[in-house]
Amino acid sequence: MSEKAWIIFQPSGRRGEVAKGISILEASQQLGVDIETLCGGRRICGKCKVRIEEGYFEKFGIDSRKHHAGAWQEEEGKFITSAQREEGYRLGCCARVEGDILVFVPEESRAGKQVVSKAARDIPIEWDPAVKYYYVEVSKPTLERPTGDLERLLEELIARHGLNRLNIDYRCLISLPDRLREEEGRVTAAVWMDKEIIRILPGEHTNSYGIAIDVGTTTMAAYLCNLVTMEVVKTVSMMNPQCKYGEDVMSRITYHVTNEDGLQKMNADIIEAINSLVARACERTYPPQENDKDTDKDGYPCLAPTDIMDMTIVGNTAMHHILLNLNPEYMGTAPFPPVVHKSLDIKARDMGIVINESAYVHVLPNEAGFVGADNVGVLIAEEPYKKEEMQLIIDIGTNGELVLGNKEKLISSSCATGPAFEGAQIAFGMRAAPGAIERITIDGDTHEVDYKVIGRDAWRSYSKSEEMQTKGMCGSGIFDLFAELYRYGVILKSGRFNPQQKSNRYRKNSETNQPEFVIAWAEETSIGRDIVITQKDIRQIQLAKGAVYSGCKLMMRRMGIDKVNVVKIAGAFGTHVDPEKALIMGLFPDCEIKRIVSVGNAAGDGARAALLNRTKRQEADWVSRNVRYLELTVEKDFQHQFVEALQIPHMSDSFPHLKGIVSAEILNKK
Amino acid sequence: MSEKAWIIFQPSGRRGEVAKGISILEASQQLGVDIETLCGGRRICGKCKVRIEEGYFEKFGIDSRKHHAGAWQEEEGKFITSAQREEGYRLGCCARVEGDILVFVPEESRAGKQVVSKAARDIPIEWDPAVKYYYVEVSKPTLERPTGDLERLLEELIARHGLNRLNIDYRCLISLPDRLREEEGRVTAAVWMDKEIIRILPGEHTNSYGIAIDVGTTTMAAYLCNLVTMEVVKTVSMMNPQCKYGEDVMSRITYHVTNEDGLQKMNADIIEAINSLVARACERTYPPQENDKDTDKDGYPCLAPTDIMDMTIVGNTAMHHILLNLNPEYMGTAPFPPVVHKSLDIKARDMGIVINESAYVHVLPNEAGFVGADNVGVLIAEEPYKKEEMQLIIDIGTNGELVLGNKEKLISSSCATGPAFEGAQIAFGMRAAPGAIERITIDGDTHEVDYKVIGRDAWRSYSKSEEMQTKGMCGSGIFDLFAELYRYGVILKSGRFNPQQKSNRYRKNSETNQPEFVIAWAEETSIGRDIVITQKDIRQIQLAKGAVYSGCKLMMRRMGIDKVNVVKIAGAFGTHVDPEKALIMGLFPDCEIKRIVSVGNAAGDGARAALLNRTKRQEADWVSRNVRYLELTVEKDFQHQFVEALQIPHMSDSFPHLKGIVSAEILNKK
Repeated sequence: MSEKAWIIFQPSGRRGEVAKGISILEASQQLGVDIETLCGGRRICGKCKVRIEEGYFEKFGIDSRKHHAGAWQEEEGKFITSAQREEGYRLGCCARVEGDILVFVPEESRAGKQVVSKAARDIPIEWDPAVKYYYVEVSKPTLERPTGDLERLLEELIARHGLNRLNIDYRCLISLPDRLREEEGRVTAAVWMDKEIIRILPGEHTNSYGIAIDVGTTTMAAYLCNLVTMEVVKTVSMMNPQCKYGEDVMSRITYHVTNEDGLQKMNADIIEAINSLVARACERTYPPQENDKDTDKDGYPCLAPTDIMDMTIVGNTAMHHILLNLNPEYMGTAPFPPVVHKSLDIKARDMGIVINESAYVHVLPNEAGFVGADNVGVLIAEEPYKKEEMQLIIDIGTNGELVLGNKEKLISSSCATGPAFEGAQIAFGMRAAPGAIERITIDGDTHEVDYKVIGRDAWRSYSKSEEMQTKGMCGSGIFDLFAELYRYGVILKSGRFNPQQKSNRYRKNSETNQPEFVIAWAEETSIGRDIVITQKDIRQIQLAKGAVYSGCKLMMRRMGIDKVNVVKIAGAFGTHVDPEKALIMGLFPDCEIKRIVSVGNAAGDGARAALLNRTKRQEADWVSRNVRYLELTVEKDFQHQFVEALQIPHMSDSFPHLKGIVSAEILNKK
Repeated sequence: MSEKAWIIFQPSGRRGEVAKGISILEASQQLGVDIETLCGGRRICGKCKVRIEEGYFEKFGIDSRKHHAGAWQEEEGKFITSAQREEGYRLGCCARVEGDILVFVPEESRAGKQVVSKAARDIPIEWDPAVKYYYVEVSKPTLERPTGDLERLLEELIARHGLNRLNIDYRCLISLPDRLREEEGRVTAAVWMDKEIIRILPGEHTNSYGIAIDVGTTTMAAYLCNLVTMEVVKTVSMMNPQCKYGEDVMSRITYHVTNEDGLQKMNADIIEAINSLVARACERTYPPQENDKDTDKDGYPCLAPTDIMDMTIVGNTAMHHILLNLNPEYMGTAPFPPVVHKSLDIKARDMGIVINESAYVHVLPNEAGFVGADNVGVLIAEEPYKKEEMQLIIDIGTNGELVLGNKEKLISSSCATGPAFEGAQIAFGMRAAPGAIERITIDGDTHEVDYKVIGRDAWRSYSKSEEMQTKGMCGSGIFDLFAELYRYGVILKSGRFNPQQKSNRYRKNSETNQPEFVIAWAEETSIGRDIVITQKDIRQIQLAKGAVYSGCKLMMRRMGIDKVNVVKIAGAFGTHVDPEKALIMGLFPDCEIKRIVSVGNAAGDGARAALLNRTKRQEADWVSRNVRYLELTVEKDFQHQFVEALQIPHMSDSFPHLKGIVSAEILNKK
């Protein structure tokens, strides 16, 4: 394992450990910080200016020094004045991470893209990838034994590595005779599942690469991994290009049903997106050894998409079907049967995916029509089936997927959260992008609001109005807001606004005659209007949280339990959710706050686990068959439970862990 | 099995049993008789005029009647006058085989193509094809059990047919959801090797189809088979389009080595040829049941290439490599290692072959660099490894492949016969096409010559000179001639012309000063020159026969035997070889004449056996590994044996079976 250093980006606060020696630009890409670059890191556009902060930062426990960013490069002089250089300015593509550093990304260098937070977490995975490299030295044929090339190779693979009964992919076979003679019979064979040879490389190679893909309804992420060291070499993400066909899975299915070539188009888009993720992951990614001969435009050795030997994919059932060109029509109507549950190994070339041409793509299994391979990914990453404690896992994307259980039993269900948690159908909702409110606090006494937006480190109260440039609210801001509104009595348990308000932020909209509450005044925004939350917005959030809460309750009832030991919140925005706020708003039944954890993009972690460990694939197939799917809508009492859950009915006795966080007065109010 | 009738075509003499009810045109195609047709049998070009002969033909044991050709069709009146009708003229596309018939094909209706004689023989094959159909009724999903489409199908296939552990091809999976709903869950699954579903057909189907392909260096043949009844539905053949790159395998390999895109071009040609063979085999081939919904241009149901569920291919090692895009360079130079020996199952779509898109192509295994899958085909068709008797199998194409052995042991070798036996490198040699001399006799007393040509039934002695239109000599004519020249003392044992000649046919060529012997006088030919055999030609034939004979001897020595029980002559021209003549010319050591048999295109029979019986595939793999390949050129004594074999050293004691056929005087002459 190479040496690592901490890097923290301001103002976003994103941080992580990265390999020493990579550029700050590369580190920003790995951590999902968007720094502007036009030339792609080739030192010619000068857009990626950053400032290295000098000093010891107690809050983070790091000592950032200018020289930790490596030697000054000649090219930087073209874009950075000597005064700026004095201040610590560098080009992100030139400066390297050579020790812990705190990097400030000035506004002008920030790319305006959505902040996709799908960075890979450290989860323990045992090494046993589906694709492994085997080095052999194959003897030449003789007149006495003029044995075929393949047979001589297979003999060596048996003799040296005990690999019996190997097949070879047809395309790989085509390359064999020449590869075998390039270095006098010395070759490395890439073998899939100890069954099939999928690449012949001349000479001895040790590092191989695979990529795990998470196809979310809204965002897609790819984790390029070294299959030997198991390191995540690079993380890249992008919007799912299918978004243009509709925000949620049902609208995508509808697009297919109402357009003759709908499926074909959406499929082509997603395949193109995967190919572009792969290409971006490989771009300027340098393999650690010199045997790899591909070079980039400047002649440096770099990875090519065809060097990727394996791919795993997770996604919800609809994404899974569209990705595989499988008709999603039937899974969209009751009783919602998917085309296929079990995991699939498909030749990348049959899907149009451009990696090593003989490679397989492993698509994880689906549980049910609305609990897909993404949830299976969450399960194999979190492994509730190996624990005694009763876990509740909530994976909130555009659709909510719930799992409850432990090693004895697992049940799953899905609930129609709708897109409210992602900012859609909310008057001033937006995606997690610069300018979106991601944190909100309300003062209990005055009902004054403080908040921070993505892309700006300083909170409202520490900024001038015009510095905020606020655009709207994203999911985590909505969570915060709803909890705070309830906690301090701005809204009542029913969700209606409290007629007794303490600030001038509460008002009736003159046009709609609807009550609303101002979060940001016009002068703080970049849109020139007050950003408000309306009574209707609150209803939408109630519908979403009610769906999750009632789902949890029904599952617990079915399981015969009245409390859970652990709550895990997964999803693209899982990393941002404040556990306390989620508990206050009543997203799920009571739980000890320190046992509510955000597990981030656990689905992606599961894809990575399946990439690096083949037993995880079996585990995924096993778990997909052994999770009992509960169709909530046919549960007795469903309607009643759902309506109840719309309210915020926390009683101090049913939510003991809210004591001291929310006042007894609020909790016990009727 | 449908009823059959005998059909004999004159003047070619080609005959065979065909299914009653097919048109005479179809029968001609099955038997390799080329009748001209421009419209492809659509009754609009009138080119396929034939004459039905009336009467009992003792020679053939058939009673041919005009009404055996079915009812007169209105369309025939456009092309056939009433006088012609009286004589028995019909259109080949309208007249049907309804009983035994003798059909005369007038000169004007004969297509001038090579006579490819690759008709399928009846060999006993047990029914166990790789692809079988299984009918199931799949239940609908319910809210209680919203199981996936594939899982419900697999459950039924297990419950009804015991097919455990089935996979499904990805392309087939794509079709599943819609196919499953077309007839309310009633589907027929085509399953390959009890392992993989390769097609879903709505409703119940029983008849499935496969095709066996023989890729010869010069000609290609395809046998379309019903995989249920095992009938050969249609046989089609064509020239190998690679001929334009060179006549023999070495010139093809050279073309690859000397042209950058040589392999690519030859591969594209052969794939295109296979696709065209498949299309022609399906053309106007009607499935016996009405469920199959594809229709031809006229709206009749017919087979489509995508209805072909399985394909097997044989070919020599060079054809095998070119077909599979495998570099043939190394197998062309010592020690001649092929890229691969073992059989391969490759997705048709990966090869560019257009049949059912999920189907596999099974390519039979190679024995060695110069003993390929075609020879393996011969072996599994003839099964010498199941017999006590010692068999010698000689497969003569452009290359000679020899197998010797029985159930105890098998050895093979290849010998460079060169193309002399196929008419190349012989002054007046030509392919087996109309105008080629295919039979020759010489009068022992006068040394006068009588012969017959392909495309004309009457021998020279029964024809006027100008009727012969002779063009040259093909392989079987060359065999005959060489045997006759020796038998009657026109040439001596050394191969040199006997100075004592009895006719004016022997002369010295005025230009070359070489001795030569006239076979056909200029007035009998269409080329306006005497057709002769030169001393140089005789040398070429000696080289070819010497290669085979010495190969046989060396193999027998290695086997420790001095006589064989059975000699089988296989090859495209095997059907034409006269066993007696082959023995006289010394192609192989002595054998009882009635135990010398022509087995025709045994390689194609082997491909068909592998198509209809999966055990034959295992047998092929087994035999390819267990035939010991003998590289003749490194055998002790090879040179000496070969030089000896160039002569025609028959002694009455070493060739007891020639007694009474060749005079003692000739046999024992020094």
